[in-house]
Amino acid sequence: MNFELTREFVDELREAINQQDKRKAADLLKDFHPADIVEVYEELNLDEARFIFILLEPTRAADVLVELEEDDREHLLDDMPGDILARKFIDRMDSDDAADIIAELPEDVKKDVLNNIADREHAGDIADLLTYDEDTAGGLMAKELITVNENWLVSTALREMRKQAKDIDEIYFVYVVDDSGILKGTLSLKKLLLTDSDKIEDVYDKDVISVDVETDAEEVANIMNKYDLVALPVVDGINRLKGRITIDDVVDVIREEAERDYQMASGISSDVEATDNTWQLLRARLPWLFIGLVGGIFGAKVIENYEGQLSLYPEMAFFIPLIAAMGGNVGIQSSAIIVQGLASNSMGIESNFKKLIKELGVALLNGASLAAVLLAYNLIDSNSIPLTITVSVALVVVIMFASVFGTFVPLGLHKLKIDPALATGPFITTVNDIIGLLLYFLIGHLFYGILS
Amino acid sequence: MNFELTREFVDELREAINQQDKRKAADLLKDFHPADIVEVYEELNLDEARFIFILLEPTRAADVLVELEEDDREHLLDDMPGDILARKFIDRMDSDDAADIIAELPEDVKKDVLNNIADREHAGDIADLLTYDEDTAGGLMAKELITVNENWLVSTALREMRKQAKDIDEIYFVYVVDDSGILKGTLSLKKLLLTDSDKIEDVYDKDVISVDVETDAEEVANIMNKYDLVALPVVDGINRLKGRITIDDVVDVIREEAERDYQMASGISSDVEATDNTWQLLRARLPWLFIGLVGGIFGAKVIENYEGQLSLYPEMAFFIPLIAAMGGNVGIQSSAIIVQGLASNSMGIESNFKKLIKELGVALLNGASLAAVLLAYNLIDSNSIPLTITVSVALVVVIMFASVFGTFVPLGLHKLKIDPALATGPFITTVNDIIGLLLYFLIGHLFYGILS
Repeated sequence: MNFELTREFVDELREAINQQDKRKAADLLKDFHPADIVEVYEELNLDEARFIFILLEPTRAADVLVELEEDDREHLLDDMPGDILARKFIDRMDSDDAADIIAELPEDVKKDVLNNIADREHAGDIADLLTYDEDTAGGLMAKELITVNENWLVSTALREMRKQAKDIDEIYFVYVVDDSGILKGTLSLKKLLLTDSDKIEDVYDKDVISVDVETDAEEVANIMNKYDLVALPVVDGINRLKGRITIDDVVDVIREEAERDYQMASGISSDVEATDNTWQLLRARLPWLFIGLVGGIFGAKVIENYEGQLSLYPEMAFFIPLIAAMGGNVGIQSSAIIVQGLASNSMGIESNFKKLIKELGVALLNGASLAAVLLAYNLIDSNSIPLTITVSVALVVVIMFASVFGTFVPLGLHKLKIDPALATGPFITTVNDIIGLLLYFLIGHLFYGILS
Repeated sequence: MNFELTREFVDELREAINQQDKRKAADLLKDFHPADIVEVYEELNLDEARFIFILLEPTRAADVLVELEEDDREHLLDDMPGDILARKFIDRMDSDDAADIIAELPEDVKKDVLNNIADREHAGDIADLLTYDEDTAGGLMAKELITVNENWLVSTALREMRKQAKDIDEIYFVYVVDDSGILKGTLSLKKLLLTDSDKIEDVYDKDVISVDVETDAEEVANIMNKYDLVALPVVDGINRLKGRITIDDVVDVIREEAERDYQMASGISSDVEATDNTWQLLRARLPWLFIGLVGGIFGAKVIENYEGQLSLYPEMAFFIPLIAAMGGNVGIQSSAIIVQGLASNSMGIESNFKKLIKELGVALLNGASLAAVLLAYNLIDSNSIPLTITVSVALVVVIMFASVFGTFVPLGLHKLKIDPALATGPFITTVNDIIGLLLYFLIGHLFYGILS
């Protein structure tokens, strides 16, 4: 089992589409999993994708819709009437997937879709889910649940579970509630299979981890990851069971979060891929480069300011890139450690003061080691004594500054509830470049004054 | 339900440990989930951690061992005799967790542990798992499985499942095999609950996604993520069912993979956290900074080579950091897009030639836009014409070079089966810094020659 999309296959499919050969196109895709069809879609243009979409049976088409990237889905559904969307597709989706898709629609289509869902209970569930922010537990959860009452007999529970299971893809957990719908615990299928008792209250597990509907999506991901959970019940303010989140939805949150941090650190906007077109790639990259350019212009201004010194000692120019780059490198290391610690909630209980002391210690050791190497190089290369000393001292000072700056900017942003990853990448390196240059010339001014 | 470790709690626990008050220490940790105890451990020193470890009942202690970071676990188990480790802890673990822990032990302890596991079947399972590379499906899987024969009656299957379930934490999937143990499909608990048929062969799902024991862990993660799987059966070369991988193990693979790429891009070794000590942080950061330093020294050599030109036109020094930084920024963007595409297996079927054309197109547009801004700035700031032209032309050339370099280095490494993430971060930025400087001075030499 290894699906690999080939150029030959895409060419063959394209040919069938161009010849409007519906039977052949459908036949080519017959055994494809919906997730594989999505990969095929990414190689096709919109008209080709539409041609194929209408060939799929509705259940598979609904699965494909759920799996598609948001903008691809938007284009595919662009002129589809709300009642068709509702009856053909939304009716076949889980409430959480349906809500995600409906949330993307224009206001008038949204209403139209909701009013045309045949199963009114399903429509109600979706409408409920639409009220939650997409980055919260409420926005991640689905309403499809199997619940049993703590007072039931095992036989009643089994009968009720059978009824409820019809609407649900797969059963991982059964939740136990009291008469007012308050979450009391979970019922393990294993225990249900093994028990000799005939009362649910003897069988169910009362230690249950749950989250509030308002809990942030990243925290949900951290909790599920930390406690190795496959499903997590979601409750409201008075602990009534409202839905459940499954791990596959959270895997996406984890992956997207980690990828976003990576992309921020690399200076690209978060929603870009190698397969995107030139315009999308440009839009994702240019703004960050512009920040770098502005930083570079400031850097030029700093150096211009010391033009007199440079005319006297042009050798000072040799180490401009080294000092700027090292400030940038150290700053990005420091901020990355903080961003990652905040993201995985593994910062420990160390106070900021202790963090500062430790960071300064690491910076001093890093700076001293590198400055020693640089000192040796400059002595061997017989550069002038003022230059040798200036460069080594500047390196230590710049590294110490960049460490502290790179540590506290993301911590500060986090306190202000701004994504700390914003501080990494081009921003940190650019600011450190400029300040590094300034420090370099100030120190140069000092040592050249003393030593020459 | 929101576990938050506080300084007050840690202080209280520490005091109990210092006073050797076992009852109080045990009481403080009484309601803690094993994953929470691990967080507590990270705040304690080794002696304190050991004091607490022996207070835990063996089942919880075994769970804590599984959850600990590898080096913390190593310290904790350092002088524990193999027979105690086997009987108290390994016997209580799932085969995959047990194998992971045994694999870390010294050879002689390893044998001792395996020979002292009371349940010989469990020992055999673990010994089997130890033969697989940890980065493959075989290394990720557990041997605990619930299997039924395709020829059984539903009632036989239920009876057998009950027997098998005793050894297993939770049932998510039941696998169906034939008489030779070859994987035939999966049995959904939902269908089992709903069926009216009395034959397993009428109930089970024959469309099953599986992986080979040799499949790479990252590919396993991509498959489970793509198809939204909670569990994945693992088979050998002739399709015999060997084990199963659950999503929680794969979440760790996904998270670690994404974090490693991020850390590589930021120039830190992959196994470092904000809570690590100074020495660990230094070791993770210094080697990358050393690369930057060597790059900076090469950069200094390049500039030294053009010292004559700089003495004549000291203004050329103004834009040294800008040119170097922009080359680095663009290179890291390009390589990040490739690294991420390779990691998530979403590179599409575009040929390398088409990738090159697209990358050059993006680079040209990026370069031209930024060069236009820089040109405008230089004209307003009334810098000299040769400088103005040199800087703008150099910017375009450097951006184009860095794009191609940043794109093809990770692609090349990937072809050579080297982790492409190695190419990002300090390496790409450093090389681009140096080549950017070289291009800048070459272009400067040309235009100053022509224009002044």
